[in-house]
Amino acid sequence: MAEAVLQLYDTTLRDGCQQEGMALTVDDKLAVARHLDALGVGFIEGGWPGAVPRDTEFFHRAQSELTLKNAELAAFGATRRPGVSVAVDPQVRALLVSGAPVITLVGKSHAGHVQRALRTTLAENIAMIGSTVRHLVHAGRRVFLDAEHYFDGYRLNRDYALEVAGIAAEAGAEAVVLCDTNGGSLPDEVAAIVADTLAATGAALGIHCHDDTGCAVANTMAAVRAGAAHVQGTAHGYGERCGNADLFTVIGNLALKQGREVLAPGQLARLADTGRAITEITGVPARPAAPYVGAAAFTHKAGLHAAALRVDPGLYQHIDPDRVGNAMRTLVSDMGGRSSVELKARELGYEVAAGSGEVARATARIKELESEGYSFESADASFELLLREELAGGPERPPFDVDSWQVSVTRLPDGTVRTEASVRLRIDGVPLAATGSGNGPVNALDRALHQALDPFFPQLARLELVDYRVRVLTGDTGSEARARVLIGYHDGERRWGTVGVDRNTVTASWRALLDAVRYVLVDDVFPGRVPAPLAAAPAG
Amino acid sequence: MAEAVLQLYDTTLRDGCQQEGMALTVDDKLAVARHLDALGVGFIEGGWPGAVPRDTEFFHRAQSELTLKNAELAAFGATRRPGVSVAVDPQVRALLVSGAPVITLVGKSHAGHVQRALRTTLAENIAMIGSTVRHLVHAGRRVFLDAEHYFDGYRLNRDYALEVAGIAAEAGAEAVVLCDTNGGSLPDEVAAIVADTLAATGAALGIHCHDDTGCAVANTMAAVRAGAAHVQGTAHGYGERCGNADLFTVIGNLALKQGREVLAPGQLARLADTGRAITEITGVPARPAAPYVGAAAFTHKAGLHAAALRVDPGLYQHIDPDRVGNAMRTLVSDMGGRSSVELKARELGYEVAAGSGEVARATARIKELESEGYSFESADASFELLLREELAGGPERPPFDVDSWQVSVTRLPDGTVRTEASVRLRIDGVPLAATGSGNGPVNALDRALHQALDPFFPQLARLELVDYRVRVLTGDTGSEARARVLIGYHDGERRWGTVGVDRNTVTASWRALLDAVRYVLVDDVFPGRVPAPLAAAPAG
Repeated sequence: MAEAVLQLYDTTLRDGCQQEGMALTVDDKLAVARHLDALGVGFIEGGWPGAVPRDTEFFHRAQSELTLKNAELAAFGATRRPGVSVAVDPQVRALLVSGAPVITLVGKSHAGHVQRALRTTLAENIAMIGSTVRHLVHAGRRVFLDAEHYFDGYRLNRDYALEVAGIAAEAGAEAVVLCDTNGGSLPDEVAAIVADTLAATGAALGIHCHDDTGCAVANTMAAVRAGAAHVQGTAHGYGERCGNADLFTVIGNLALKQGREVLAPGQLARLADTGRAITEITGVPARPAAPYVGAAAFTHKAGLHAAALRVDPGLYQHIDPDRVGNAMRTLVSDMGGRSSVELKARELGYEVAAGSGEVARATARIKELESEGYSFESADASFELLLREELAGGPERPPFDVDSWQVSVTRLPDGTVRTEASVRLRIDGVPLAATGSGNGPVNALDRALHQALDPFFPQLARLELVDYRVRVLTGDTGSEARARVLIGYHDGERRWGTVGVDRNTVTASWRALLDAVRYVLVDDVFPGRVPAPLAAAPAG
Repeated sequence: MAEAVLQLYDTTLRDGCQQEGMALTVDDKLAVARHLDALGVGFIEGGWPGAVPRDTEFFHRAQSELTLKNAELAAFGATRRPGVSVAVDPQVRALLVSGAPVITLVGKSHAGHVQRALRTTLAENIAMIGSTVRHLVHAGRRVFLDAEHYFDGYRLNRDYALEVAGIAAEAGAEAVVLCDTNGGSLPDEVAAIVADTLAATGAALGIHCHDDTGCAVANTMAAVRAGAAHVQGTAHGYGERCGNADLFTVIGNLALKQGREVLAPGQLARLADTGRAITEITGVPARPAAPYVGAAAFTHKAGLHAAALRVDPGLYQHIDPDRVGNAMRTLVSDMGGRSSVELKARELGYEVAAGSGEVARATARIKELESEGYSFESADASFELLLREELAGGPERPPFDVDSWQVSVTRLPDGTVRTEASVRLRIDGVPLAATGSGNGPVNALDRALHQALDPFFPQLARLELVDYRVRVLTGDTGSEARARVLIGYHDGERRWGTVGVDRNTVTASWRALLDAVRYVLVDDVFPGRVPAPLAAAPAG
């Protein structure tokens, strides 16, 4: 197989937007395009001008606001309607008006769809594809044909599918992109159909996969091995139903598993950052488990593994995470032991000697707390506070003391519910009291705590409680059970999690709240703290 | 290739628990095992007895509490340590003590790992594998060998990897499971290595993949095509780093794409429900985009597709979602729709006509409640109350009315915490008041409720609150978010779940408590109720 340079074609801004929850503004789309361009993809499909008003505006604004260094912008559209001249088809005109240098046309290659969905003849569909491609090529555009339902169409009527591919290439399409539109194919079939199409038509081929069998990436890889030289996908595999092929995974596989030069030298290390930046813009979270770029892609929990990881991280990682700009993380759990505590401490920036007494003591305390129901996996901040105590050889002086607190929830006969909390604290022995009301006991306690502390510690004002989870642990009876509360705090930049356990959910919540506040204050009360590495901590 | 019956081996309770955020109690593990067994997998790996105390307890309790219809329980463990007799190795003894009829041993097949991580000789590792397998087989157990790092090991030193596979088979292992432990392989390599190993050793082979190249499912399919007859995976692909092969996707692909009889007839339609039930227990959400079982797997948004979907849903779906118990969605909703409400109603013993108005109204109300954050997957009792209301043509007369309630939690300066609740109710217009104290607000409210009602409804005295979960839904800030409370009640025989949603966690909890009590009283207040089938309801 010739090792030609592969074309990377991103369709996040068109097919990726079919994903539930994706509602990008034009500004968002421009921002995503800039990140994809900076990563180094060859083509960025911006949408369907003429059909979707927001996309029309995107292409209009892109002409003045989007300066691309690596990529060419592509407009997506359909072949002309049946029975009209391509020159007067308004949808085709809108593609030219968009100003996009590249136009990707969707054309039907499934004989059944031509008849049932398009409601025209097989011959007219061929004519529509040929005339639209020629028209746009004559107008000076680079043209790709997305052959919709190609694999299903090939299985139904091979000759017709091949005819579509052939006519598009003959008319001047730079590549015929074989689409597994319904996502139902498996790699062996994809490879065989790509190879046969290549042999029968000689057309330059591309591949566009969906993940309905969990094989979108593998199908893409199979198509490339069979000779496809143009690869479509989306950031994080965003897309309708089960999503599209995840372009980041495809890039990682092609570059690191098959040595293909899909990105310029050095660019691969931007992969994880690009993924994070796009997630921030779309607001649609990527899977923590996403290969290469996910927050958990190089996260380890098993004690069995943690010990080996200390010997050599490569033992349980398929690549060095640095190569894609990601990082190894270790989770502290009852499946781990000393080795995971040690690894985690180093990750957080603390210098601990292998097999040191501090680590042994911290591990023992963690195991004890875990047996009471604590879990530190999602509570980095509580873990760090505990670790600091062991490293300091005893409890650190708290920035404030707690005397008492109270919270009440009252449901009045008219159905309204009132929640009120009060706290009594001391700072350097000076007593202070405050109250707060909220939507629930924890919210009210959080507000009372802020009411009391913010005047003295202004840095607390930016804090927001962004996650709250309660889990009842063990116990055959509710009354004997313990509650584990996980709290997530955010200060606009960093995010950190804490944990509290108690038989009383409110007391457990209070403990987690206190840890979250102490974690912030520890910097000021105890200067010289190592730089906090929590910026990249997971959302949970 | 022989179309032998494939062994489905689930390792959610062991390898799946390496996933970040998975912290299952023994009760959770038992509940997950029951769902997997009901689906029809052949083997359920429960954990590592002897190494993880919780897993030791799991196997102990499983002996009396877990009655499996389809599956056999497997204990995971390691081969004996270097240089000791297998008969005295405590870790191996713990596997036998667990009582599990199947034991899956992890053994190293990568020459580099033997030397660097295990720190023993290649020959001793072979001896360890052989002697441990033989020892367990002699003890009457079925044994599988998980050949760790097999694919990487094969690439480094083919002869040694083959020797490991051969010795395990020779010693009596029922299958040698080739593990892509670091998940870095691609399908073509996996197929070639499986085929070569099969040819060279003649051993029965299994496959265990991780998703670090996004190809865990495809690698599993490739191994099966190359002759592997035992397939390992986890529910939802739970697992460390990028996760394991998603067993649900593998099942869907094998059954629907390749016509393999992996489940008993009719069982495939339980796939999506099984996925949802397991998600509720673990609290670790599955991807909406997960193939076959995901909430979005058959969700459509594209305008282009919408018209075609009206003509024929099959045009943009690779399979009929009914086949896996899932449903096409064009709206945002967790539950399938009318047909699943209908199915569920029949499951609960209610006679409803297909396409009846009651079912349509119940479905509409459920969709509305779901849009507010309700979820009925683990709240059969709340679902049944709602369904009964629609079947009765309006709200049923409540056994009692609520005037008001209050709960307060006070932390005194000496550190003790007091939680007290009061309720004011009416039965047939007669007012009554009661108080209760407890370990937390919900416990106190529950006791006050019992204090008030038990004298009038003695059947309530047996009730116990056995599960309580809170999840915060949506919302960028804790204060704006809604809380979903799931409550589990038990009366010594039956177990039932209810749900409440509100911005205030205590109000949400109160709603779930009321549903739980009403569910019991409905029998007496409205005689003639069909027998409650909730005994087998899931724990979550």
